[in-house]
Amino acid sequence: MAIATIKWVNGGARIIDQTKLPNQLQYIDCRDVKTMWQAIKRLSVRGAPAIGVAAAFGVLLGTQQFKGHDRAKFLKLFHKTCDYLATSRPTAVNLFNMLNAMRMVVTENPQADVTLLKKLLFQRAMAIFKEDQAVCRQMGDHGAKLIKNGMQCMTVCNAGALATVDYGTALGVFYSAKKAKKTFSVYSLETRPLLQGARLTCWELCRQKIDTTLICDNMAASLMGKDKVDIIFAGADRIASNGDTANKIGTYMLAVLAKHHQVPFYIVAPRSTFDLKIKSGRQIPIEERQREEVTQFTGITTAPKAVKVYNPAFDVTPANLISGIVTEYGIIRPPYIKNIKTVIPTKVGIH
Amino acid sequence: MAIATIKWVNGGARIIDQTKLPNQLQYIDCRDVKTMWQAIKRLSVRGAPAIGVAAAFGVLLGTQQFKGHDRAKFLKLFHKTCDYLATSRPTAVNLFNMLNAMRMVVTENPQADVTLLKKLLFQRAMAIFKEDQAVCRQMGDHGAKLIKNGMQCMTVCNAGALATVDYGTALGVFYSAKKAKKTFSVYSLETRPLLQGARLTCWELCRQKIDTTLICDNMAASLMGKDKVDIIFAGADRIASNGDTANKIGTYMLAVLAKHHQVPFYIVAPRSTFDLKIKSGRQIPIEERQREEVTQFTGITTAPKAVKVYNPAFDVTPANLISGIVTEYGIIRPPYIKNIKTVIPTKVGIH
Repeated sequence: MAIATIKWVNGGARIIDQTKLPNQLQYIDCRDVKTMWQAIKRLSVRGAPAIGVAAAFGVLLGTQQFKGHDRAKFLKLFHKTCDYLATSRPTAVNLFNMLNAMRMVVTENPQADVTLLKKLLFQRAMAIFKEDQAVCRQMGDHGAKLIKNGMQCMTVCNAGALATVDYGTALGVFYSAKKAKKTFSVYSLETRPLLQGARLTCWELCRQKIDTTLICDNMAASLMGKDKVDIIFAGADRIASNGDTANKIGTYMLAVLAKHHQVPFYIVAPRSTFDLKIKSGRQIPIEERQREEVTQFTGITTAPKAVKVYNPAFDVTPANLISGIVTEYGIIRPPYIKNIKTVIPTKVGIH
Repeated sequence: MAIATIKWVNGGARIIDQTKLPNQLQYIDCRDVKTMWQAIKRLSVRGAPAIGVAAAFGVLLGTQQFKGHDRAKFLKLFHKTCDYLATSRPTAVNLFNMLNAMRMVVTENPQADVTLLKKLLFQRAMAIFKEDQAVCRQMGDHGAKLIKNGMQCMTVCNAGALATVDYGTALGVFYSAKKAKKTFSVYSLETRPLLQGARLTCWELCRQKIDTTLICDNMAASLMGKDKVDIIFAGADRIASNGDTANKIGTYMLAVLAKHHQVPFYIVAPRSTFDLKIKSGRQIPIEERQREEVTQFTGITTAPKAVKVYNPAFDVTPANLISGIVTEYGIIRPPYIKNIKTVIPTKVGIH
């Protein structure tokens, strides 16, 4: 059964509540922008490309109910809605890129009245949705060429159907490889503190009958030391113009371990994840989340109250540790400063 | 308040039930060898040196109630008890070394009758207990010389008072540094799947008012990448004669990351952790534990049933990644094959 992480149904956004997986497949129907903001904030919907689509849908939720024909009032509400959604999470650039793509509807159509603007915004959001479906399959097909029969692959967090509309970035590579009838297996890092690897990636891969083994994050090195990892695929939340890549905490760990063990390490991400305005990863804001994610589990305390906690949600992997970046245009190789510029269109927005 | 992880009280072994920490400080009174075997197996008592003492006490529990004066029957029970305790956990060599130290009482006293043997075994177990207290303080003092004011230290799992009788190996270094009035802070890796770092190390260090920050295992690399880690101390479960060291899963990860970031990486362990009979870490058996440790938390399932799980409790860090091994005799430096032989007495047993 296909997974529909996010879709527009009956004038609202329906998302899978990923905090309930793998035990329950529940949906949240977002009928207003606040519900969507909270869904992003509390990770009911997560994954950079999915957040991008969620933001576009959030703009619709915040503006489609507008009554009347006062363009100035409508635009005020529109920008307020965009600004509000921009505060939900700081690291994944897809959120900001897709909000910009929505804002461009307004700048591109200075004469459009409220009715037309609503219609154009709706069309833009649907185009963003469909583009995600298309580019994920393109990335998957490009990346699948890297997988040879018998390979033992590794991935971290969830860069799958649940991180996109319905196919995935890093996991899309596995889906395309499976479609191409390749045989391979996958190690999924559980990804503390919120276990997106255990809860989401294992759930997805098992549904697709892909040979999957769950490990704790601290076991990846041991497997590499035993030559049990042939290739690593990770998603991305933001890629700087020099190729430095922010992704889920632990990705940098994997990249350093991969270098030590000479294991190829690939990032899989669409152009909406590139932030060509920044020169390097040092300019990427890293979200720090609350201590309870680390010190509690379903209300049970697992650490003393007195202890301090450091809980960054992401880390930055420097470009020199990345073997290649799989995009919808193909695989970008080093030198990234030159090759990203050549491949990725600078214009923000959709195709 | 001092921590008494294990002690002999009223003819039995009293241990802290570490599965209940940090929320409850509860004790288990072991009155028979089966209770002790289970306590070791289910990690109520854990940590290589503590397991060694627990095994010695376990021998007493299995033999002190013996009635009569039949030496042959007593020795049969004695060896059966030792063999039984040896099946509790496979990796930490202290268990086997301390059982051998107990067996030597018998071989060293071929003429002793049952009454005398019981007395000598009791004395040997108490000597093992006291030696642990002494050597931990010696290791701590040697290791503390490596800590300079302002240093940000890192440790994994629990190599503390709770892993020994009452002081610790890696954490003993911090206690000695604190006693020497040095200022420093500690990052404690939570150590999945059983969170000994979060539950035990943070509890111990906070009780001793040491500046401690809890992180998930996958955050260590990120901190090293930001130059926030100056030195790493880890315990050991078994050290081969070439210096290869088995310790809690994730230690090898830390050692590789430390090398990449040029952070000094030290092992802290007494001679009872050395296994001079084996040439390298390849000969160390690695315990694999049940899948539920990874897929469940307090009964709540966090991964789909269909997924496979790999759950090794330990990994092996090759000697070439270890800056030094802190022992009760001082710090052993490379080349380990030569220097371990020089420093560590080959005779198994206690001083």
